[in-house]
Amino acid sequence: MEYVFLAEQRRFSSEKLQKVPVFDSDKMLLDQYCLEPGQAQRVHSHSEQDKVYLVLEGQAVFSIGGDEELLAPGMAVIARAGVPHGVRNDSANRVVLLVVMAPRPA
Amino acid sequence: MEYVFLAEQRRFSSEKLQKVPVFDSDKMLLDQYCLEPGQAQRVHSHSEQDKVYLVLEGQAVFSIGGDEELLAPGMAVIARAGVPHGVRNDSANRVVLLVVMAPRPA
Repeated sequence: MEYVFLAEQRRFSSEKLQKVPVFDSDKMLLDQYCLEPGQAQRVHSHSEQDKVYLVLEGQAVFSIGGDEELLAPGMAVIARAGVPHGVRNDSANRVVLLVVMAPRPA
Repeated sequence: MEYVFLAEQRRFSSEKLQKVPVFDSDKMLLDQYCLEPGQAQRVHSHSEQDKVYLVLEGQAVFSIGGDEELLAPGMAVIARAGVPHGVRNDSANRVVLLVVMAPRPA
């Protein structure tokens, strides 16, 4: 059975945000994003993919479709295909996000 | 911005497992499954969809591809397309799962 304990798969770097693969298929991608204080994923968009973020740890500022919100653990947000989105850790603590993309990027 | 606080969207019923929609698109479905003690989703399969379960609360027995494992909060498991899968709450406490399916079932 393909299962993982997410907390065991976290990896941080002082260089940049780390994307740690969780599950990968031809239908979706599941990753953990690990952000040290000050790190970010710049605003970008995907023409074909929806992306869902779930905050697992810490608080992060999400920019989606031009709106910004500070989200906390247990909160989930969707960036639908074509909508500009990004996230940054403006806090003094680490941030961990669970991120689903579907369909899988080519 | 489309965000939700997952804990505010839980709904239990003594009748059966509750599936509470979180996000829905033509690319994926995100739901919370809420199981009272003794409740289950029987083993079944989808020929086209991958399904990922993340345990948010409680401990549940997952049956995937004929194997059984008791998974706890922070653990995630994937049932790939065509693989029989189900979950049951054999415990004395409530179980909450976050469930992603992709692509969206027709």
